[in-house]
Amino acid sequence: MTDPFVVVGADAAGLSAASKFRREASDREVVVFEKGRWISYAYCGMPYFVAGYVDRMSDLLSLSPGEVDERGIDLRRGREVVAVDPDAKRVTVETAAGDRSEQPYDDLLVATGARATTGPFDVRGVDGAFTLHDMDAAAAIDAYVADPEAYDPERADVSAVDRERADRNATMSAPETAAVVGGGYVGVEVAEALAERGLDVRVFHRSGHLLSPFGETVGTRVEEALEAEGVTVHTDTPVEALVGDDRIEAVEVGGETDGASPERIPVDMAVVGVGIRPNADLLDGTGVDLGPGGAIRVDDHGRTSLPDVYAAGDCATARHAVTGEPDWTPLGLTANRAGRAIGATVGGDPTPVGDIAGTAAVKAFDTEAARVGLLDPEAAVEAGFAPVSETVTAGSRSGYYPGAAETDVTLVADRDTGRLLGGSVAGTDRAAVRIDTLATAIEADMTVAEVERLDLAYAPPFSPVWDPILVAAKVLNGTLDG
Amino acid sequence: MTDPFVVVGADAAGLSAASKFRREASDREVVVFEKGRWISYAYCGMPYFVAGYVDRMSDLLSLSPGEVDERGIDLRRGREVVAVDPDAKRVTVETAAGDRSEQPYDDLLVATGARATTGPFDVRGVDGAFTLHDMDAAAAIDAYVADPEAYDPERADVSAVDRERADRNATMSAPETAAVVGGGYVGVEVAEALAERGLDVRVFHRSGHLLSPFGETVGTRVEEALEAEGVTVHTDTPVEALVGDDRIEAVEVGGETDGASPERIPVDMAVVGVGIRPNADLLDGTGVDLGPGGAIRVDDHGRTSLPDVYAAGDCATARHAVTGEPDWTPLGLTANRAGRAIGATVGGDPTPVGDIAGTAAVKAFDTEAARVGLLDPEAAVEAGFAPVSETVTAGSRSGYYPGAAETDVTLVADRDTGRLLGGSVAGTDRAAVRIDTLATAIEADMTVAEVERLDLAYAPPFSPVWDPILVAAKVLNGTLDG
Repeated sequence: MTDPFVVVGADAAGLSAASKFRREASDREVVVFEKGRWISYAYCGMPYFVAGYVDRMSDLLSLSPGEVDERGIDLRRGREVVAVDPDAKRVTVETAAGDRSEQPYDDLLVATGARATTGPFDVRGVDGAFTLHDMDAAAAIDAYVADPEAYDPERADVSAVDRERADRNATMSAPETAAVVGGGYVGVEVAEALAERGLDVRVFHRSGHLLSPFGETVGTRVEEALEAEGVTVHTDTPVEALVGDDRIEAVEVGGETDGASPERIPVDMAVVGVGIRPNADLLDGTGVDLGPGGAIRVDDHGRTSLPDVYAAGDCATARHAVTGEPDWTPLGLTANRAGRAIGATVGGDPTPVGDIAGTAAVKAFDTEAARVGLLDPEAAVEAGFAPVSETVTAGSRSGYYPGAAETDVTLVADRDTGRLLGGSVAGTDRAAVRIDTLATAIEADMTVAEVERLDLAYAPPFSPVWDPILVAAKVLNGTLDG
Repeated sequence: MTDPFVVVGADAAGLSAASKFRREASDREVVVFEKGRWISYAYCGMPYFVAGYVDRMSDLLSLSPGEVDERGIDLRRGREVVAVDPDAKRVTVETAAGDRSEQPYDDLLVATGARATTGPFDVRGVDGAFTLHDMDAAAAIDAYVADPEAYDPERADVSAVDRERADRNATMSAPETAAVVGGGYVGVEVAEALAERGLDVRVFHRSGHLLSPFGETVGTRVEEALEAEGVTVHTDTPVEALVGDDRIEAVEVGGETDGASPERIPVDMAVVGVGIRPNADLLDGTGVDLGPGGAIRVDDHGRTSLPDVYAAGDCATARHAVTGEPDWTPLGLTANRAGRAIGATVGGDPTPVGDIAGTAAVKAFDTEAARVGLLDPEAAVEAGFAPVSETVTAGSRSGYYPGAAETDVTLVADRDTGRLLGGSVAGTDRAAVRIDTLATAIEADMTVAEVERLDLAYAPPFSPVWDPILVAAKVLNGTLDG
């Protein structure tokens, strides 16, 4: 083994793999190619930077290039890997100037992430229209939202930032109204962020409730939480077009179910985030197997169908704990964990990347929401289960204890086996972290009867005698028995 | 089956059993004997009543006698069951006036609870000295602590309350200093409560750290939390005597390890809670099998060794999820759950009472602490394991997110199998509910490697990418591999 471990992409999965590899195999070389300037930033923190909860963009960086260097990782920024030759075991690398070179590898990790999709419209070239997909966009949004007199360029205090773009946005008059196009979790977080910055915010969502993967109970609850803070939520309302030549003027929303003609709603700003898609193009033409969502299909050790080629993070599949099948649910922990496991495996200590349960959490002001597993009945049926579901509303603390809050818990189980398939939790008092109990039960293949008998902590300030999860299990068990 | 289901004790276990039995077998009779006046009160809420977090004692009642009656339960208060004849299948019942009668049963549930132990000293007859073991004591403490001018008798707004005792305590001059004897979880809660009422509080604990079953990390953290709010904590300091004839004047603490002579510390009040003991005396002479702590030994359906005699709640054992052996860890959920299961079983639907994991949580001002499983190395060795333990301190949220707080997690695993045996969590941000993840993993017999691969929720406001539990599992795994 004379050639290095080559990693494409210097974010969560790529740098986790390179770091772990160096600790496992300190005498071997690892080269990380990153096409851009940014490395290892906390994507999930961007809405909170926009909201102003985070003062400095540099707080969102997990690792600086200097720290990467100290770990003995050969990081090459501004170098895009444009082709992979799995037979010759080498990649083609291109600089911004167009210079090309070849880099042989012993093992290759593709950690190219995902990209935001903007649906039918293009936000490029229209001032005031954004996708919140990278740190440059976060800096630009922060600048655009600020009053030109009051803008603090020091908030975007990272040398990699697109300064020109941020400064240009800072000169524009501050927006008073905003449309958030798409009510997924980033949409919800952006709506909260812009409302915190004083904007009059509308969220437009194509389907009947926000946060589709979280189910209707959670979606409705989060909608109420946003509305309570002055955000207007339009469900069943797809945005058809962004209106405006140089600067955004309005969004055009489709005739709703009643067949009304499209309506123009004037806005000073639009943030579009209707989905993301895996960056798998690099392996086009190699014959690599793809999985759900077009993500690169990997096995339980993160190996693709190409020899010595691994994939991890938002561009790759992961095995779902309930179905046992490859799934594509791009999230931060999955990327970090898979990267770390692949780094260990390539370094000589074979380590499974672990299953995913689709565990996710989000907040809307004081309301916390989380989901796990197979929550959607159709998805459960498709996976061969006979889903039965119950939703309860139960207190988060003993009723007499101040601060007890109504907590919604939905549980889904298989009618034939009683196995827990999925669940959600929403509420204002420690609701989100309760999902971890369900995630653990799901990964342990527990039945709802076993969940009902769990010895969960009871103490009046934190939980009633019967934790909301136990109440939900009790009710669902009754339904399964009935 | 012509005789009723007889239940001894009208608290959590007894009334849960009677209620469930009536729902399962609506045509059969259930008689509940309660020697006192109080039924179904939230013992765990008493410190919060004393603290003033709860305004009215009636808020602590789960069920009123009227509600019990509406459920079709024949509740007989002021009736003490003084003997059981398991051969004849009948109990002897005595009124306060000393009248005796016999009551035959088809099935019998002993749910007699536990009693506080006060160690070497007796608090009876000394004004200002209390045990916080029942609602009358809570009312008396609340009255004693109040300024005589300001006492509000309406706080103890339950007809069952010992009005004379409360009123007598209300007339005494308000205490300024208090000793809490015993630093278990009730001791910690009482210390917080009395400090909230403005008293200068000292906690005396026999061993080296508070909350012995929670381990040293938690005990030390809780000690710091109490001290930060002005409570003085004396560890390694057993109280030898309460000093005072009619009213408490001081506590006498032993010569500490250095052999110094006993010291008198003047106090205006003492609350003693050095432990509790199961009320199993009722079955003395029946030959019933007893288990750890002298509790009534039961099987997985709550059956004692006597035919058709069940036991549940603080007087009974429960099977420990880690050791598989009978254990005595009296807690509220255990009592409710076992009572409910026995009610179903006696009613015709055999239902296991469920294992316990020893899950417990407590708070000291803003600090939350929780524990589960086999945490004490000696207990783990005794149960045949080779315990290995690691403690980490990790952030409760992404580091850049406001409110992230240092969270201590201790995990204990078996060196040979990697199985998770126990754990604790302490911190100020959503720490206690995180124990439920560990309780679930323990009941699922997970290894630490499996815990490390759990797909727990990551969202910056609630958890960093690597939840503190995952960080602890990662570190402990490293130790197990090393």
